[in-house]
Amino acid sequence: MSKLILALDVLDEKKAMDIATKTAPYLHAIKVGYPLVLSSGMNIVEKLSRIKPVICDFKVADIPNTNRLITEIVRSKGAYGIIVHGFTGPDSVKAVVENAGNLHVYVIAEMSHPGATYIMQQHTDDIVRIARETGAHGLIAPATRPERLNHIRKIAGNMEILSPGVGAQGGKAREAIEAGADKVIVGRSIYNASDPAEAARRIHEELESI
Amino acid sequence: MSKLILALDVLDEKKAMDIATKTAPYLHAIKVGYPLVLSSGMNIVEKLSRIKPVICDFKVADIPNTNRLITEIVRSKGAYGIIVHGFTGPDSVKAVVENAGNLHVYVIAEMSHPGATYIMQQHTDDIVRIARETGAHGLIAPATRPERLNHIRKIAGNMEILSPGVGAQGGKAREAIEAGADKVIVGRSIYNASDPAEAARRIHEELESI
Repeated sequence: MSKLILALDVLDEKKAMDIATKTAPYLHAIKVGYPLVLSSGMNIVEKLSRIKPVICDFKVADIPNTNRLITEIVRSKGAYGIIVHGFTGPDSVKAVVENAGNLHVYVIAEMSHPGATYIMQQHTDDIVRIARETGAHGLIAPATRPERLNHIRKIAGNMEILSPGVGAQGGKAREAIEAGADKVIVGRSIYNASDPAEAARRIHEELESI
Repeated sequence: MSKLILALDVLDEKKAMDIATKTAPYLHAIKVGYPLVLSSGMNIVEKLSRIKPVICDFKVADIPNTNRLITEIVRSKGAYGIIVHGFTGPDSVKAVVENAGNLHVYVIAEMSHPGATYIMQQHTDDIVRIARETGAHGLIAPATRPERLNHIRKIAGNMEILSPGVGAQGGKAREAIEAGADKVIVGRSIYNASDPAEAARRIHEELESI
């Protein structure tokens, strides 16, 4: 099984389907966000799901009732996973988990951009606790800060950790896995490569060799 | 000019257009969220904008580059405003403000659900500061907690404050305005009413009398 998740952050549906098809043999799953979904419509989730399991990176951060509605729509399109924020508190996360069915729920323990250190990073431990207590499946933790990823691994119990920020953002696949990530998320280094399949194959093989 | 914003949290496009048309004479703007947009497609924003200005309540909470992409899509559909989270830090909010063009950017100072007291409420003042320093147009502050709304009014300078939670969630229109809100956001009490136009008219007249 591959440890590689493709962050398919392109805006064009045809390009998205093309890259997904070519890279599929080397992927565990495909992560899509709002830019692609708002550009091409929510049916892109159904279409991509025929190729590989799809994780909707919607960073859901609303009141419980709205979180529930978003979760139900994501489920209805056959997605594999959903990514939510935990800073909104346990009731908001619980509303996702309780309505997730077979959807894997991933809570963002910490983000990878500079601004994440301003407020969010103070609450990483609280958010991991919320994720565990509400019964979420896994966590998102940054490959750009391996020492933080390692800290999150230590307090995460046996939750699955997905780690974005590998490649263009500076994170290293090997470092992320060694720090405790179960899977790494790679975007630009694959979808902007002249040969996306070859780029995915290489990262997949590097991950296999660890 | 009306002080009433309709939170159009229905899932069906036809129903949404029908309620918007009937209540329009009493509204300042219409707020839409992801449940409606994911169900009916992003073009609903263009369609509703022909009736009233539309505020996209997307609670944008991503890294700067993704925040920028979401903002650009919202702009391209002719929306009037966008609602973003501030807990992600100044760089994420700035990415929205700098790419907003004529879009009014509203930062969530505090949410109305119980879980908001868990982590977010500790950072209301930080988030208001981020909103002011990045040049956002306004803030979102809860009608369900008038004393908090009043506190936010005091530190908000001359930023416009929109206040959700009026009606079914327990907040009172008059109390919210007296505590410092410029506009109130009402959902279920209007769209679930047997006569949405009449419900909107009554709240509008109450607001006019303050």
